[in-house]
Amino acid sequence: MTHATPVPVYLDCDTGVDDAVALAYLLASPGVDLVGIGTVSGNTSAEQATRNTLDLLALAGRDDIPVATGAHDHLSHGYGGGAPHVHGENGIGGVELARATRAEHPAGAVDLLLELSHRHAGRLHVLTIGPVTNIAHALAADPTLPHRVSHVTTMGGAALSTGNISPVAEANIHNDPEAAAALLAADWDVTLVPLDVTLEHTLSDADREALTAAPSAFIRAVGDILDHYFDFYRPLYGVRSCALHDPLAAALAAGGSVTSRAPRVPVTVDTTQGPGRGQTIADLRGQRLGPVDHEGSRVRVVLETAEPLAPHLVQTLVGYGVDPR
Amino acid sequence: MTHATPVPVYLDCDTGVDDAVALAYLLASPGVDLVGIGTVSGNTSAEQATRNTLDLLALAGRDDIPVATGAHDHLSHGYGGGAPHVHGENGIGGVELARATRAEHPAGAVDLLLELSHRHAGRLHVLTIGPVTNIAHALAADPTLPHRVSHVTTMGGAALSTGNISPVAEANIHNDPEAAAALLAADWDVTLVPLDVTLEHTLSDADREALTAAPSAFIRAVGDILDHYFDFYRPLYGVRSCALHDPLAAALAAGGSVTSRAPRVPVTVDTTQGPGRGQTIADLRGQRLGPVDHEGSRVRVVLETAEPLAPHLVQTLVGYGVDPR
Repeated sequence: MTHATPVPVYLDCDTGVDDAVALAYLLASPGVDLVGIGTVSGNTSAEQATRNTLDLLALAGRDDIPVATGAHDHLSHGYGGGAPHVHGENGIGGVELARATRAEHPAGAVDLLLELSHRHAGRLHVLTIGPVTNIAHALAADPTLPHRVSHVTTMGGAALSTGNISPVAEANIHNDPEAAAALLAADWDVTLVPLDVTLEHTLSDADREALTAAPSAFIRAVGDILDHYFDFYRPLYGVRSCALHDPLAAALAAGGSVTSRAPRVPVTVDTTQGPGRGQTIADLRGQRLGPVDHEGSRVRVVLETAEPLAPHLVQTLVGYGVDPR
Repeated sequence: MTHATPVPVYLDCDTGVDDAVALAYLLASPGVDLVGIGTVSGNTSAEQATRNTLDLLALAGRDDIPVATGAHDHLSHGYGGGAPHVHGENGIGGVELARATRAEHPAGAVDLLLELSHRHAGRLHVLTIGPVTNIAHALAADPTLPHRVSHVTTMGGAALSTGNISPVAEANIHNDPEAAAALLAADWDVTLVPLDVTLEHTLSDADREALTAAPSAFIRAVGDILDHYFDFYRPLYGVRSCALHDPLAAALAAGGSVTSRAPRVPVTVDTTQGPGRGQTIADLRGQRLGPVDHEGSRVRVVLETAEPLAPHLVQTLVGYGVDPR
């Protein structure tokens, strides 16, 4: 597959096991030009996420991609300590990577995003796979940002699915509901990739073993990083495996995955302090006979994709660095 | 089917088209002894619900069952005018029934419920198919009520289904979230019958025609009452039909319908003023491999029943007054 003009992508992440997989997928996708990465606290601290991202990029031979640290704390509350039971103490399943030799980008994530939005005005695709605190700060700092962004893809939320951090809230959104509300209210087109669809896309142990046997040391490391995550998901699925939250959002942004049910509907974030805090309330009423787009809504809620992600993901990752691009 | 001792049932309703069907089902069920009915505003006003209930009972030849008017207004707000677009201007699809000659019970619904709870102490089954304002008032008036009630079955809420009055809230609960919170927090076992399951049980036009051809004039009237309701549901299902919200709750209370998936889980009502107001937040996480009961929760959320309701419902209704009981 060749792409005349790869899409410039800014990635905002909290690396994180599935963030690492998503990062690998983006690097391996010929249609993507990963022009910059900002980090944020979520699965781990923003600082640790930066380190993980730098180390992964070094292993991938991609020290050219700027990585800027973003928000340590969220709009309404401080960083809560991440999810070490899910992502390991260091965010990448306890795997110790060789330290990158370069430093992070001197500007913060917000400035990097704004700078990239000017450099790639009208073409920049913003992909968020963590809490969207940085995006809210960028929107506050420069409300014209949406006019220079072609599209936003956000992994987060639960429409009709159960949540994963509360009965109804997904962790990325729950970590910063006010920021998510700002992102969804801004003047741009958003593809929201909620648990409804990400929980239906899983990686098997055989898939993971294919990664640990890949030609690229970078991809082999990603396979190792997944090991701890597979243990976490075992009780949920009954077998060692994992949900492909962030990789699915990356694949949708990169065009490697295509939606088959993704209506444009009003989505409101519950920013109360009540039991629904952090819920993405999507108005999916009246969709029994088929998807119905709501006039005026700019948020597309992905409920189903045309194909399972895992085969494409594994093939793409295993091929990393093998075919000269 | 014979029942040595029919279960004494107190019905709290806002009659209402599907309330009328539920009422007919209860009267036709040999296992049920309908010992009293309280009304509440919801589909229509409490006063209109009382009139509808009295008129239906007169047609059914059951003037022996006391009907007491309950709350016109809800705990936090006044009656909002009902749902004439769904249930017709008079609550029963615009059908004009002959006026009952008897008057309503002199005590209000709360006193009737409390009185019945003493008369049938330990055996009384409380079935609610409207907003549960009366139940909240009864719990406030006499906190010992739960000790005399064997079970509560409540039609209301939306667990993972869309709502019907907001994206996430069902009308009965949304009409009085504070009352629903009080009911769910009380010291009794509750079977919650939400939209998740009631929307999956429908009556067809052929079913309705079977009712309009029934031997009993009462059942024929119920068939006529459904006509307007079928028009409302046509866009939802794509054919003239209707959801069996209240009848399913009645059938579950009467034992005519049996659950096949109904985990006991924590359920919280959103009583904030936020976008989730009136949502029944059921913790259904971790149920992918099968139903899991939560230790200590006394609320069973019905997600699936063993059989479709319609055939049993139609057979029961058409047989009303035919077989001597």
